[in-house]
Amino acid sequence: MRFAILAATILAIPTTSLAADMVEDTIAARQGYYKLLGANMGVLAGMAKGEIDYDSSSAQTAADNMVTLTSYNLGHLYVPGTSADDSDKTRALAKIWEDFPGVQEKGAAYVKAAMAMQEVAGAGKGEMAGALGALGGSCKGCHDAYRAK
Amino acid sequence: MRFAILAATILAIPTTSLAADMVEDTIAARQGYYKLLGANMGVLAGMAKGEIDYDSSSAQTAADNMVTLTSYNLGHLYVPGTSADDSDKTRALAKIWEDFPGVQEKGAAYVKAAMAMQEVAGAGKGEMAGALGALGGSCKGCHDAYRAK
Repeated sequence: MRFAILAATILAIPTTSLAADMVEDTIAARQGYYKLLGANMGVLAGMAKGEIDYDSSSAQTAADNMVTLTSYNLGHLYVPGTSADDSDKTRALAKIWEDFPGVQEKGAAYVKAAMAMQEVAGAGKGEMAGALGALGGSCKGCHDAYRAK
Repeated sequence: MRFAILAATILAIPTTSLAADMVEDTIAARQGYYKLLGANMGVLAGMAKGEIDYDSSSAQTAADNMVTLTSYNLGHLYVPGTSADDSDKTRALAKIWEDFPGVQEKGAAYVKAAMAMQEVAGAGKGEMAGALGALGGSCKGCHDAYRAK
């Protein structure tokens, strides 16, 4: 299962202290992953709000990208020692590393919502917009629980 | 073909001027994509150099991630108006937008090298290291041609 990737990989990583530059590099790459999610989400949200003209192909591409990223193994981006307790460059709460089942659950909600969006993104503005709430909610669910305000 | 994704999508994007924050957001997301590539490349290179112990599973995961990212549609990250001529936050030369066939060629070399790495990354340190030169070379090929020094 896609959403099993994260925790299984993190658990396999030995907890050793990381060099400071490796902490920052990891955080920057992790933020890169979420910037990609956010950029695609921005396309869909912008179309739903009417800030961008709805375009079936672009909407579908954004949804496809969001699903493609669920196949990316996040383990190396969540090496222990890269939380907000370790660096002021991240808002990732240490709780992430203490609550894998909870993180998995949020991840699974995202995968489900992204796949549902992929089914309808290109079908029309209304269809796409109808799937957006659950997708945005799955992002927010994780942010609310695991990201510092 | 995977490597056809980039130019086909860019060509479909109308050239309109972008709001400054959209330029910066696009550049940040684009850099995020390459930070992910770099982080996985760093795992493989670190193992080849002996800075990290070779681990079959981690090496395979890094290679798999690099291939997964070839399925990501980069079009939205290369919107016209986001070159080094437009912002000091990026080294992406304007030449990228003027030479799609050349960019395609570099992209195709990367896809080929990443898939070759995926075949051998988990098979042993020597096998993985043997595929690293071509992979690193494909990164460098694009940087040399399309990234400011």
